[in-house]
Order: sequence, then structure tokens, then C-alpha cells
Amino acid sequence: HLRVLVTGGAGFIGSHLVDRLMEEGHDVILLDSLFTGTKTNFKKWLGHPNFEWVRHDVTEPYYAEVDRIYHLACPASPVHYKYNAIKTLKTNFLGTMNMLGLAKRTGARFLLASTSEVYGDPEVHPQVEEYFGNVNCIGVRSCYDEGKRAAETMAFDYHRQHGVDIRVVRIFNTYGPRMVENDGRVVSNFVGQAIKGEPLTIYGDGLQTRSFCYCGDLIEGIVRMMESSHTGPFNLGNPGEFTMVELAEHVRRLMNKDVEIKYLPATPDDPMKRQPNIDKAMKYLDWEPKVSLEEGLKYMIEDFRTRIEARN
Amino acid sequence: HLRVLVTGGAGFIGSHLVDRLMEEGHDVILLDSLFTGTKTNFKKWLGHPNFEWVRHDVTEPYYAEVDRIYHLACPASPVHYKYNAIKTLKTNFLGTMNMLGLAKRTGARFLLASTSEVYGDPEVHPQVEEYFGNVNCIGVRSCYDEGKRAAETMAFDYHRQHGVDIRVVRIFNTYGPRMVENDGRVVSNFVGQAIKGEPLTIYGDGLQTRSFCYCGDLIEGIVRMMESSHTGPFNLGNPGEFTMVELAEHVRRLMNKDVEIKYLPATPDDPMKRQPNIDKAMKYLDWEPKVSLEEGLKYMIEDFRTRIEARN
Ligand SMILES: NC(=O)c1ccc[n+]([C@@H]2O[C@H](COP(=O)([O-])OP(=O)(O)OC[C@H]3O[C@@H](n4cnc5c(N)ncnc54)[C@H](O)[C@@H]3O)[C@@H](O)[C@H]2O)c1
Ligand SMILES: NC(=O)c1ccc[n+]([C@@H]2O[C@H](COP(=O)([O-])OP(=O)(O)OC[C@H]3O[C@@H](n4cnc5c(N)ncnc54)[C@H](O)[C@@H]3O)[C@@H](O)[C@H]2O)c1
Ligand SMILES: O=c1ccn([C@@H]2O[C@H](COP(=O)(O)OP(=O)(O)O)[C@@H](O)[C@H]2O)c(=O)[nH]1
Ligand SMILES: O=c1ccn([C@@H]2O[C@H](COP(=O)(O)OP(=O)(O)O)[C@@H](O)[C@H]2O)c(=O)[nH]1
Ligand SMILES: O=c1ccn([C@@H]2O[C@H](COP(=O)(O)OP(=O)(O)O)[C@@H](O)[C@H]2O)c(=O)[nH]1
Ligand SMILES: O=c1ccn([C@@H]2O[C@H](COP(=O)(O)OP(=O)(O)O)[C@@H](O)[C@H]2O)c(=O)[nH]1
Repeated sequence: HLRVLVTGGAGFIGSHLVDRLMEEGHDVILLDSLFTGTKTNFKKWLGHPNFEWVRHDVTEPYYAEVDRIYHLACPASPVHYKYNAIKTLKTNFLGTMNMLGLAKRTGARFLLASTSEVYGDPEVHPQVEEYFGNVNCIGVRSCYDEGKRAAETMAFDYHRQHGVDIRVVRIFNTYGPRMVENDGRVVSNFVGQAIKGEPLTIYGDGLQTRSFCYCGDLIEGIVRMMESSHTGPFNLGNPGEFTMVELAEHVRRLMNKDVEIKYLPATPDDPMKRQPNIDKAMKYLDWEPKVSLEEGLKYMIEDFRTRIEARN
Repeated sequence: HLRVLVTGGAGFIGSHLVDRLMEEGHDVILLDSLFTGTKTNFKKWLGHPNFEWVRHDVTEPYYAEVDRIYHLACPASPVHYKYNAIKTLKTNFLGTMNMLGLAKRTGARFLLASTSEVYGDPEVHPQVEEYFGNVNCIGVRSCYDEGKRAAETMAFDYHRQHGVDIRVVRIFNTYGPRMVENDGRVVSNFVGQAIKGEPLTIYGDGLQTRSFCYCGDLIEGIVRMMESSHTGPFNLGNPGEFTMVELAEHVRRLMNKDVEIKYLPATPDDPMKRQPNIDKAMKYLDWEPKVSLEEGLKYMIEDFRTRIEARN
């Protein structure tokens, strides 16, 4: 029974994590500005004696007495994080600074939700944690990529300098129920488009690759990491690698054989390949993803259908 | 006649820049926390009607009405920036944020003194501005390297988002009079050691390379950049490339043929090669370094001798 703070707890990944921690019987504080998160994602816990909801922006200091800090607050989809790039950078830097200050003061263990984007457009494939990355530091994605890199730097500096007990995970593309429908991410776009019978939009030639991890698998990895004795950074993701064309074919097969595919221009600084090497997580956390893309997509399609139908 | 703010103006490069701007007749505000800078470096201007000295830490907001901001405040030598890594990171991030906020409010033009360290341990040689770099984001140098990368990100985001008029220069190793004697940088170490008759300390095998630019040349490049119409980033440095063994030989030849060379262990994450490609600065600023290593070393040796003798 721990006092656990989850920043970004109203978001896609954060809300699944809150469910898991509540089900385990912890005292949970969900801190969120509701920039991209929603109350719907946690309404089932409102009124529960172990649950507390705090509307707060992590770029401002926050004081509470806690044992664990899962620091997830940050827009994750390119559409959202480019919307106000300066704010994204501040959220990454000031938010992480404040949460590390809180961890230092309370002695809480701190976990940073970092990202595969710290590898940028990788020249090492699949990506191992030792790889330094290939990141444009002055481009339109830099607020996110460099923001997360600087957040990792700060976590390790608080660890070295003040002995703060840190955990760093580099999360690869994750999907599942509760993704925001119009967040512009590829899986939410394709599933939403297929439901509405609109063409699936592929940016560029569609030969760029990603590895998609089901959110349930990811949460298991994050919690194991927090309760392990390793600082990381450890990659968390599903090593299965697909081109966007293959993903579109999967979605067509599962949902709507007749939906068209439309090719749109590529977006700037779009990484060409991405696949995690998860040897470290396998070895030290005894973790690996269990849910196949096909199975995970079914859960997600069900959730999107329910939400879209409820709205109509 | 402009109102010019120089952050870090009490330091090595900043104080030479202040001299130049004062000689040109501008209204100069020198802002510095005196973390590594000293009053000696600007005492000749105290009392001058165009000169103002402000003791201030750039991690805190600062308000004034200015036309130009040369943002140099940041410890530059590894010994100093590792001393309090968290503070270095805050200086880079919060300091740059505050100065960009000031630029946004006043409409001042803002120049960021970035660094060749944004290229890390480069795999492209010589380094061109398009190169994304090879930087460890969780190592002991990251507070500086990642701090500067995030500062560049922020400058470009203020430019794109608020139209702030920015200039970014990536400065390569610079040397000359007024370097702090015990700052641990290689040129100051060797010159100081040779004067005292102590062995020249080489870290590692001494085959790593650097390119050394004389401070007078650099100041000319920085001022040209500020008054140009280009945002950059542009590299500023001297393309002459030397191994540390060659540098030691130069110093021995110029100062003291008998002084010994002592090999010490390499420092972590020490870049193996560094040499600027300065095609952009040559083309767009019509700038290139004029002072040879031999000539520049002579000026520096003279300055170090005077200071060491004055003390004894
Ligand atoms: N989903 C992925 O594929 C993925 C991949 C890599 C890393 N991550 C990381 O995981 C974390 C969660 O991602 P997600 O997919 O759940 O995204 P999300 O956008 O659904 O959730 C982010 C949450 O943070 C909140 N937030 C944003 N800025 C805030 C601020 N300044 N103060 C307080 N709250 C703020 C949002 O309101 C939202 O609830 C992020 O840190 C993200 O970078 C996600
Ligand atoms: N010297 C080089 O070879 C070199 C190379 C690349 C980049 N640079 C950059 O040039 C700039 C100046 O470098 P330098 O060699 O003159 O270093 P320096 O250490 O001599 O000067 C830095 C100055 O900034 C001041 N300062 C530090 N933190 C501050 C804070 N929080 N608030 C206010 N003032 C603060 C220091 O007191 C000092 O006067 C730095 O930004 C550095 O990163 C220098
Ligand atoms: O319980 C706390 C303790 C600190 N902080 C913030 O965390 C940041 C970093 O704290 P730290 O103590 O490391 O730094 P300092 O206050 O010395 O700058 C500060 O800006 C604080 O406002 C916070 O939000 N909650
Ligand atoms: O409707 C879409 C949305 C995205 N993408 C591509 O899918 C990949 C994954 O994009 P996403 O935004 O989901 O995540 P990230 O780029 O952050 O990995 C990228 O190559 C995008 O260009 C696409 O082809 N169609
Ligand atoms: O003249 C100014 C204007 C702003 N700032 C600081 O610069 C930062 C960024 O300013 P901006 O207006 O961009 O951001 P905001 O205040 O909206 O966060 C803020 O923290 C301000 O405290 C400053 O030091 N001097
Ligand atoms: O007494 C010294 C100080 C530094 N170096 C080496 O000289 C190079 C330049 O170091 P400096 O600290 O001057 O600058 P930076 O590493 O930031 O380029 C690095 O390879 C150092 O390991 C050395 O051999 N002896």
C-alpha cells in the first residue's frame, strides 16, 4: 500500500496505469492539466476513498507526501506536441524538474516516461539503449525529442548529485483503448477512418516502420520497472516491426476490406525506422509483450466503435 | 548606438565582447552571477557612463529595455560545468528561456552562444551544421551538451512561434587572454603548467584532436553574426586541427623545451575529434580566423605570465 502520484494520469497510458494501481489497492493521486487527457478516462474512480484528482500544470511546483512518482505528463502525439512547441518544451523540462524536486524532498522513487524519440531517426537498428540517437535539435519535433532528452539528463543528474532513486523507460509506439480519436497518431487515424469508411491516410511512401505495443503490455513493463532495482534507461515496446502499408492492410483485413488508401506528403523529420531491442527489459524485468497486433487492434476497434456509436 | 545586454559578460569570451561593444560606443549592460567570471575582467569600464554592471543569475527573470541580447551566461569548462550539473542544466534552460522571454517582450535581437559540443563525439568530420550529432544524453557531460541543445531548440521555437529574431552560433574551442588559470581546459592547463615548470598533463593517449580559435577572431565572428540577417546555426571556430600531443609540443617549443609530458587517464565521454567546417560563416558573414595558434598562444602566454607574476 503506497502513496502513488501519477502525472498525466488522465491521458491514454496514464489512465490505464491509474486503473492498475487502484486495482492493486494503492493510494493514488492523479495529477493532470487535462491538456490532452479527459475526465472520462478516470470517472470510474471519482469518489473512491483511495483516489484523488488534482487539476494542476506540472510546469508549476507541486507539494505532497508520496512514495512513488510516475511522471507521464506530456502530450505524446505529434499533432498535440507541435500545437504549442514552447509549452511542450517547458512541460518536459520544468515538469520533470519539479517532480524531481518533489522526489528529492520526499525521498519518493521517480519514474520518467521517456520515449523512443530520443533515438530520433535512428541509424542503429533495432535500437539499443546504448545508442546515442540521431536527433535534429532545431526542427519541429525537437520540442518533444530534445525535451525528453533533457528530461533524461536531469533525472540522471538528480540521481548522481542528490541520490534521487530514478527509473527511466524509453517507451516505443503504444496503442489501445482510450487513445484520442483525432490525435493524428497512425493507429488512431486508421481505426477511426476505417470505422467512418474514409480512406486510410499514409504519409510519404508508407515504407517507414514502427513497432506497436499494446497498452496492457506496456503498463506491466512500467510497473515492473518501478518496482525493480534498476535505473535504466530500458526500452519498453513490442519488437514486431511493420511498415505503415502493412498496418493499413491489417486494419483493412480486420475492419473493412473496401476502404481505400490515400497517400499524403511525408511529414518533416519523420523517422524512417523504429524497432526496440528489449533484451534489457527481458533480462532484468522478466518482461515481454504478450498481445499480438491483431488481438490488440481488436480491443481498440471495439473501444473506438463504442465511443463513436455513443456519440451518434 | 544600441542598448546591448551581454549575459556572462564577466567571463572569458563575454568580457572581450564587452570591450568590443564599449569601444564601438554602445550602451552596454553586463549581466553576470560571477560564478566563473571576475570583476577584474571588466573593471576598466566601471564608472563609464555607457556601462552598467548587474549582478544577476539568469535562471531568474530579468527586465530591461534593450535592442540586442548576447546570451553567453553558462560555465564553459568541463571542470566548472560538472561542479553542479543540475545548476548548469538550469542555467542553459531557464537562462535561455528568460532571455528569449525578454527578447519577445522588447523585440530585441537575441544571439545564443551555443557550442560544438552539440555534435558530441562526432562521426562526421569536419562537423557541418546539418550534422545531428552524437551526444550521450545521460552522461556526465550531458548537463552542458544537452542543455545547449535544448537551448537551441527553444531559440528556434521562439523564432517559429513568436517571430523572435534569433541568431545561433556554435562556438568551437576558443583560447586567449583572461581564461581562468585553473579552469581545467587544455590550453590554460598547458600554459599554466609550462610557466610553473610542471609537467604538461595529457588525458588519454593525446591523439584526440581539437581546433583552437583565438578569442579576437571569435568576437569578430559573433558580432558579424549578430548584425547579419541569418539565424544560423553557424559554426565559428578555427579549422586548424591539432592533437593534444601536438598542442603540448607547440607549448614546449614556445615556452619551455624541458618541461615534461605526463599521461593521465582519459575523461569519460571525451570527444575524439573536433574540427569546424566554417563554409557558412565564410560565405554569409565573410568571416574567417586570422590569428595562427602560434601567434595567439604568444598573447595568451604574455597574459598568463603577467597575472601569475602580479600574484607572486
Ligand atoms: N503513447 C505512446 O506511444 C508513447 C510513446 C512514447 C512515450 N510516451 C510517453 O508517455 C506519456 C503519456 O503518453 P500518452 O500517450 O498517454 O499521451 P496523452 O497525451 O494521452 O497523455 C498525456 C497526459 O499528460 C497531460 N499533460 C500534458 N501536459 C501537461 C502539463 N503541463 N501538466 C499536467 N498535465 C499535462 C495531458 O493532459 C494528458 O492527460 C508521455 O510522457 C509520452 O511522452 C507515449
Ligand atoms: N570558451 C570556449 O571554448 C567556448 C566554446 C563553446 C561555447 N562557449 C560558450 O561561450 C559562452 C562563454 O564561455 P566562456 O569561455 O567565456 O566561459 P566563462 O566561464 O569564462 O564565462 C561564462 C560566464 O557566465 C557567467 N555565468 C554562469 N552561470 C551564470 C548564471 N546562472 N547567471 C549569470 N551568469 C552566469 C559566469 O560567471 C561567467 O562570467 C558560454 O555560453 C559557453 O558555453 C565557449
Ligand atoms: O516538493 C517539492 C519540492 C520542489 N519542487 C520544485 O522542484 C524544483 C526543483 O527543486 P530542487 O529542490 O531540486 O531545486 P531548488 O529549489 O534548489 O532550485 C523547484 O523549482 C521546486 O519548486 C516541487 O515542485 N515540489
Ligand atoms: O494518418 C497517419 C498518421 C501517421 N502516419 C505515419 O505513421 C508513423 C507513426 O506516426 P505517429 O504519429 O503515430 O507516431 P510517431 O511518428 O511519433 O512514431 C509516421 O511515420 C507517420 O508519418 C501515417 O502514415 N498516417
Ligand atoms: O522581460 C522579460 C520577459 C520575460 N521574462 C521571463 O521569460 C520567461 C519566458 O517568457 P514568455 O513571455 O515567453 O513566457 P511566459 O511568461 O508566457 O511563460 C518567463 O518565465 C519570464 O519570467 C524575463 O525574464 N524578462
Ligand atoms: O590538462 C588537460 C586538459 C584537457 N585535456 C584534453 O584536451 C581536450 C580538450 O579539453 P578541454 O577541456 O579544453 O575542452 P573540451 O573537451 O570541452 O573540448 C580533451 O580531449 C581533454 O581530455 C588534456 O589532455 N589535458
